[in-house]
Amino acid sequence: MSKTIAINAGSSSLKWQLYKMPEEDVLAQGIIERIGLGDSISTVKFDGKKESQTLDVADHVQAVKLVLDDLIRFNIIASYDEITGVGHRVVAGGELFKESVLIDDQVLAQIEELSSLAPLHNPANAAGIRAFKELLPDITSVAVFDTAFHTTMPEVAYRYPIADKYYTDYKVRKYGAHGTSHYYVAHEAAKLLSKPIEELKIITAHIGNGGSITANLHGKSVDTSMGFTPLAGLMMGTRSGDIDPAIIPYLVENVPELEDAAAVTNVLNKESGLLGVSGLSSDMRDIENAMEEGHPGATLAYDMFVDRVKKFIGQYMAVLNGVDALVFTAGIGENGWMIRRDVVKGLSWFGMEVDPEKNVFGFAGDISTADSKVKVLVIPTDEELVIARDVERLK
Amino acid sequence: MSKTIAINAGSSSLKWQLYKMPEEDVLAQGIIERIGLGDSISTVKFDGKKESQTLDVADHVQAVKLVLDDLIRFNIIASYDEITGVGHRVVAGGELFKESVLIDDQVLAQIEELSSLAPLHNPANAAGIRAFKELLPDITSVAVFDTAFHTTMPEVAYRYPIADKYYTDYKVRKYGAHGTSHYYVAHEAAKLLSKPIEELKIITAHIGNGGSITANLHGKSVDTSMGFTPLAGLMMGTRSGDIDPAIIPYLVENVPELEDAAAVTNVLNKESGLLGVSGLSSDMRDIENAMEEGHPGATLAYDMFVDRVKKFIGQYMAVLNGVDALVFTAGIGENGWMIRRDVVKGLSWFGMEVDPEKNVFGFAGDISTADSKVKVLVIPTDEELVIARDVERLK
Repeated sequence: MSKTIAINAGSSSLKWQLYKMPEEDVLAQGIIERIGLGDSISTVKFDGKKESQTLDVADHVQAVKLVLDDLIRFNIIASYDEITGVGHRVVAGGELFKESVLIDDQVLAQIEELSSLAPLHNPANAAGIRAFKELLPDITSVAVFDTAFHTTMPEVAYRYPIADKYYTDYKVRKYGAHGTSHYYVAHEAAKLLSKPIEELKIITAHIGNGGSITANLHGKSVDTSMGFTPLAGLMMGTRSGDIDPAIIPYLVENVPELEDAAAVTNVLNKESGLLGVSGLSSDMRDIENAMEEGHPGATLAYDMFVDRVKKFIGQYMAVLNGVDALVFTAGIGENGWMIRRDVVKGLSWFGMEVDPEKNVFGFAGDISTADSKVKVLVIPTDEELVIARDVERLK
Repeated sequence: MSKTIAINAGSSSLKWQLYKMPEEDVLAQGIIERIGLGDSISTVKFDGKKESQTLDVADHVQAVKLVLDDLIRFNIIASYDEITGVGHRVVAGGELFKESVLIDDQVLAQIEELSSLAPLHNPANAAGIRAFKELLPDITSVAVFDTAFHTTMPEVAYRYPIADKYYTDYKVRKYGAHGTSHYYVAHEAAKLLSKPIEELKIITAHIGNGGSITANLHGKSVDTSMGFTPLAGLMMGTRSGDIDPAIIPYLVENVPELEDAAAVTNVLNKESGLLGVSGLSSDMRDIENAMEEGHPGATLAYDMFVDRVKKFIGQYMAVLNGVDALVFTAGIGENGWMIRRDVVKGLSWFGMEVDPEKNVFGFAGDISTADSKVKVLVIPTDEELVIARDVERLK
């Protein structure tokens, strides 16, 4: 019996999900938080139960050991060697990794070299990989890149209108993000529509605390809203998304506490978006609640959020010269029926119409009216499953 | 007989156009370049003739004096007092000026105070105003603001997804540009379509060396691609337009010769866009010629330019929830038949189709096919005429 674990390692966290493959059954899942910070918290969910404990986890090796021991303790596995494969989410694959790969020493070194493109994420992903290599050296180990799906973008989309040398020498280009999610929901959409993905134009809106929208032409990403970094594109929970770049030097010059471009960008990443405009919260649920109570900042934040989503859908309809289906996924995309309603309400000219009943009560699937020319779909994303499948495929 | 002069003053230049009003006949036009730099060049066009001279023009007062004396020398006017009105283009009107106004001392002071929003332009505009006040103190003097037309944008469009204080305390918001041109061509489009502008959704693409695209709902600007500054939005001759803002701190940190955000923004303003990508020229005519000879940088620059124009048209179709007409204007918009062809070619799904004959040989007017659901129009812009009309209106 083959068990595969999907890993998403952050700098102080380790998220995991254990699958029985090829059945794709989820056996257990969990997260360890505050790694290396003291009072670490480990949570394990299995068989409808949830177990938590607080203890000190010094590093990612200890974290992986804890996961494995918990799996034994809760009788989910009998011994380590039941786990035959591990798949690691890696944030930045640059131009090097166009698909998932088996991890050897060279691949690990390359993932670490790509840290300049994701300084917070790739080192953490590498730490997770090394921890598994140490404890389970002989299992299949696969890297699944968040950027890989977007490597099909044409040059016209991924290049910025800046001098060649910044691309050639400094690797400044659009890489995108959430690739695994866009890939997954685009393929699920094709299944739902019972059409070959090679014949479809799909816009996938992965909207959560972070978010990106992708133009999928015949199953390939041809443009996406995140850019060189995850700051670009949509308005997000705490991120501004696209703004006039000249605002950065203006704020450096005029705001005493913002002394350089890095300080401004920090504000744009962490204190902007829904949080910045509302002055209240980065969580869309809080924003919607406050809006219903008449909070002006929350109302403006909500309306701006809808406006930015609509504008990217418009952009990508232009890029694709049409669209067959619009897919909502991720936290807000899957649960935010008001957002879905208000985005699509403003796009009726394009032949998009949401069925109010299905939108509020349908949870997932086709939420458009029967005569909506463009289908509007809600599809729960499942990046872990794609990771587990890629491990299985590369074994 | 009433004569009105429209003025566009730059830091070292003064462009002018003299009208007989209300007939709107252009009597003469000209430009003085290199003011204050030695070897200034004054050019005057009238009656199909063109006269140039090189001489030293120390400041804007001398420049205005030279214009007036040339008008007498060439028998275009018999004396100064034939000129009864002057209209000045002013780049930044901030939130203060929602329409054209008669200039008194307070208005002049406000224009100068708004220099923080247009440090290169407003001081020059003010210098032009003062020069006329000195030489022709008694004529009607009107300021026409490049931003005024965009003051109808809703908050959702003009606010950035950043904390409130940057708007409230530092005035960071979208102001837009080319307002006079967008206003003019939108109204001309309504005339051409023989429909009241109050019933039309129009997208106006003012594309020259600089460029912006505006969403016009019932005659009002509801969104526009330029932002807090003219760097934002479209890819332009030397400007990048929108990029991931996080590129700025990355370049500061990694490129030795770019030491701060201001240095990067200078590159984004002056060495990017068509020039940066092609490595060749900021002029679309050069790009098109080089592309036809197979120059890869020029081809990429051209394709990216088309892509960005299309994406803004898509955005604004989404903002307007439809569109009745797309208008091309300004240097590239009026003359670039290849650009028009390639932009609209990718938008056929939306019911836009260009008639190839009309597009290449029609010069101006409706260039769409008879069954194009969305009309595609070429309308030469005329900002000077709007300025002269506003002077006449406010007399």
